[in-house]
Amino acid sequence: METIPDGGILSPGGFRAGAARCGIKSAGGEPDVALLVADGPASAAGVFTTNRFAAAPVLWNRQLLPSARMRAAVVNSGNANSCTGERGAADVRAEAETLAQLLGCAPEHVCVSSTGIIGHPLPMEKLLPGIRAAHGALSAQREAARAAARAIMTTDTRPKTAAVRSAIARVQFCVGGMAKGAGMIAPHMATMLAFVTTDAAVPPAVLQELLREAADLTFNRITVDGDSSTNDTILVLASGRSGARVTADGTGAPEFREALQAVLGDLALQVVRDGEGATKTIEVHVTGATTPADAEKVARAVAESQLVKCAICGGDPNWGRIVCAVGYSGAQVVPEHTAVQIGSVCVFDKGMPTGKDAAAEIQGDRVALRIELGLGAAEATIWTCDLTEEYVRINARYHT
Amino acid sequence: METIPDGGILSPGGFRAGAARCGIKSAGGEPDVALLVADGPASAAGVFTTNRFAAAPVLWNRQLLPSARMRAAVVNSGNANSCTGERGAADVRAEAETLAQLLGCAPEHVCVSSTGIIGHPLPMEKLLPGIRAAHGALSAQREAARAAARAIMTTDTRPKTAAVRSAIARVQFCVGGMAKGAGMIAPHMATMLAFVTTDAAVPPAVLQELLREAADLTFNRITVDGDSSTNDTILVLASGRSGARVTADGTGAPEFREALQAVLGDLALQVVRDGEGATKTIEVHVTGATTPADAEKVARAVAESQLVKCAICGGDPNWGRIVCAVGYSGAQVVPEHTAVQIGSVCVFDKGMPTGKDAAAEIQGDRVALRIELGLGAAEATIWTCDLTEEYVRINARYHT
Repeated sequence: METIPDGGILSPGGFRAGAARCGIKSAGGEPDVALLVADGPASAAGVFTTNRFAAAPVLWNRQLLPSARMRAAVVNSGNANSCTGERGAADVRAEAETLAQLLGCAPEHVCVSSTGIIGHPLPMEKLLPGIRAAHGALSAQREAARAAARAIMTTDTRPKTAAVRSAIARVQFCVGGMAKGAGMIAPHMATMLAFVTTDAAVPPAVLQELLREAADLTFNRITVDGDSSTNDTILVLASGRSGARVTADGTGAPEFREALQAVLGDLALQVVRDGEGATKTIEVHVTGATTPADAEKVARAVAESQLVKCAICGGDPNWGRIVCAVGYSGAQVVPEHTAVQIGSVCVFDKGMPTGKDAAAEIQGDRVALRIELGLGAAEATIWTCDLTEEYVRINARYHT
Repeated sequence: METIPDGGILSPGGFRAGAARCGIKSAGGEPDVALLVADGPASAAGVFTTNRFAAAPVLWNRQLLPSARMRAAVVNSGNANSCTGERGAADVRAEAETLAQLLGCAPEHVCVSSTGIIGHPLPMEKLLPGIRAAHGALSAQREAARAAARAIMTTDTRPKTAAVRSAIARVQFCVGGMAKGAGMIAPHMATMLAFVTTDAAVPPAVLQELLREAADLTFNRITVDGDSSTNDTILVLASGRSGARVTADGTGAPEFREALQAVLGDLALQVVRDGEGATKTIEVHVTGATTPADAEKVARAVAESQLVKCAICGGDPNWGRIVCAVGYSGAQVVPEHTAVQIGSVCVFDKGMPTGKDAAAEIQGDRVALRIELGLGAAEATIWTCDLTEEYVRINARYHT
């Protein structure tokens, strides 16, 4: 498997992308509608938010996926079409119908995604012309993938794309993807929005299972602020164009799994690195837990602790706050068995401070925290970012 | 029952207080050791943090309480004596022994509390002389109560005290208290530190039960940042001096319960109002839940949402973030039955925006959020504060 530099959703064959500006996102001149279109019927799978107030487009996609005949996805930024009731559901259908008509397919073969402010009806008088304009811009060129990745951004400061190349039985295939997300990030199924393409052929049920597994190991292991959005979505479309095949009995699945996890993992880390206001990426690695669930509880408690995240923002190796979060995580922990390492320095061991100074380990833009519970063999990793004054500024000023 | 203006731990008869500066807290000249001493053996109860890394003084108090013969509490600020291992336990005993010798009682009749930085051994060469100095300053005058309330502060911007007067069978009694806490506030049993006195006579087992109940309704319903500290403690000492009696069969318990809950509720709200960097107090009231646990889950999810707290900091009635938190709370909720009210304005009803503007409801320093789930009769209230740039500044700069 190899990484494709500057790769994205058009690295795999069999897809086109397009973007346009329709004026939903207020920031001057930025595109805010993106299309991803397969040349023919594609195998497709999706994972979605567990939020009970799932947005209208999430409800639409959920009933369509997995599918063997998906053609396209339409995405807008600037408005989440969430908590918009029957009007929101009707708007989703109108979006799908508009694109379906242009493509000559059924509306049920079009996925729909939205991201942005919650609770406002979509301005359809802007969005439907925007979909037509983006359709007119459809292209298989790399620039089109870049434009689409920009069009789905909200508070993101940069587009997020990734792609890898691998092979099944010596037949090469690609997996490419794009994602957006910087705030309201604590996915319990997927994060804000990610779109993944592949030119491998993968049966829908297998694609769904592999996507679920990859999401659990990547996007479900990141958190920016502990707020799980109403719109979290990952969609995968498989064109089969490369000739590489994953079969229902599992042939080719290991190669495809590796490639899919690599792309999702890369995108998920890009989301954390671009966390609202973030200056540092933090990896919390917990080992020695009694169960995987306990390992994850501890990692999440530390990764979501406002006080830990503020300390790291301030460049302070305040391990007391880390130990405190371990203590209230709800996991089985025994102070006398617990050790904490910041970077390569062990600051706490067997329930006691070691007296070692870890200040130098926390000055860079990547911080590694390791917590050994000394009770069992289970482990878990969560990625997060620091909590800064800029995060508050962004979210106090992001007005409705 | 009536409130005692400027009342505190010395409003009830039978107690003295004292404070001194020993130099643990770095801020210039502020007192950092406080004593609360009963004139004779007092009935005593306590509730403590559920954090698995409970600090050494918490472990000491836990094994002593409830008790019929407690004499005193010694408290220092600036160092939490938490995660300090065997050295920490020995230091607690030395503190208790020092004060016990001065009072002529057993060390087991002295409670010990600490608050401040985690993971550093107590500077005993400063603290023990500080205890002696505070003992020399013991007084039953109101000024001594004020000095003690100042001595237990860390990042608090003001001391927190409260007292009420009530009567059992026409015999008057008082309940008074002081608390500290501004950050690391998400008590699951009690908050940082609170000390309550009464001159009613209350058997230890009854006192313990009434304290647990009162803590659940007051301190356990506030959150500043979702971080539960290693030192959370509420202690109550009952001198019996007033002649008012609560008996084991429950006589007088309703009157005492009301007074105790009033003092703890008042102190808990003072902690939220003084939340680190806070500019607004937020009351989240959830009604119509299927179970009390579900009501609390929803109230906590909203009260701990960084995005909701940032929006309120910015004066923005961003109800989409409120609904989003309701949706990921884990409680049973049905979008079509849910309504959200900000102040007196209903912004979301039956799963749909009402289109009403609640901006005016969010400009003052108290904000009321009401969430009606429309499913049952259970309700819960949580008090919190907004999340501001100042919170991050304080916690990024609070160096170890």
